Amino acid sequence: MSFYEKLKFNADGLIPAIVQEQSTGRVLMMAWMNKESLQKTIEVGKTVFWSRSRQKYWLKGETSGHIQVVKDIAFDCDGDTLLIKVEQTGAACHEGYKSCFFRSIRDAGNQFDTTEERLVPPEK
Amino acid sequence: MSFYEKLKFNADGLIPAIVQEQSTGRVLMMAWMNKESLQKTIEVGKTVFWSRSRQKYWLKGETSGHIQVVKDIAFDCDGDTLLIKVEQTGAACHEGYKSCFFRSIRDAGNQFDTTEERLVPPEK
Repeated sequence: MSFYEKLKFNADGLIPAIVQEQSTGRVLMMAWMNKESLQKTIEVGKTVFWSRSRQKYWLKGETSGHIQVVKDIAFDCDGDTLLIKVEQTGAACHEGYKSCFFRSIRDAGNQFDTTEERLVPPEK
Repeated sequence: MSFYEKLKFNADGLIPAIVQEQSTGRVLMMAWMNKESLQKTIEVGKTVFWSRSRQKYWLKGETSGHIQVVKDIAFDCDGDTLLIKVEQTGAACHEGYKSCFFRSIRDAGNQFDTTEERLVPPEK
C-alpha cells in the first residue's frame, strides 16, 4: 500500500511536517506540505513546503542556500503529521538560528530566554 | 514580556505542540493545545492537550498512566508552534509504540516499514 493512502490532509489540503536534524536530534522547524510538495520533496530529496502566507511552493534554502537534505520520512499513527529527518546546511531559521525553536520559557511563562547562538544574520 | 504575547493561536484558538523525549531526542507525537491547556500544562508540569475530535481537555496518560513530565517548553520564530521536551512514561502512542512516528517510507513512498517495536498492547 502506498503511504499516501495513509495520510490525512486537512481541509486546506495540508499536512504539518516536523523537521528534525538527523545527526543531532535537534528539532529545527515545522512547516506545511500539500500532496504535491511532499511528492516534490521525495523526488528531489530536499524539503519543499507549501507557503500558506505566499500561496506558493517553497524549496527550503533556494535563495539562502540553507537546504535540507532528506534522510527519512516518517508519518504518525493518525496519518496527519509527518516527521522528516534531514541534514541541514547552515541555519534552518530565517532569523539566523540553527533551529526556529531558539527560545524557551521560564518563570511559568512570564519570561523567556534565548537558548542558542545566532549562526548567520537574519534574512531580509 | 510574557511568552503568551508571542504566540499565535489559529482560527480555532489552537497551536500545535511537538513533543520530544528529552533524554533520547525521539520525537514522540504532535498534538494541539489551546491557551488554557497550555496554562494547565505549565501549572501541573505534565502535558495537557485539547482533543479536537472529542472537544475536551486531555491530560496525556490520565487513564493509561503513560504521562509526560514536562522538562522544557520552547516556541518558534513565528510563535505558531510549540516544542515541548518531556520524559515519557511507557508509550506515547495509543497503538502501543514509544513514538507515534513508528513508520517510515521507502521506495519513493510506494512502501513503508514499521521501524520500532511495540512496547505495550494498543489501547482500546
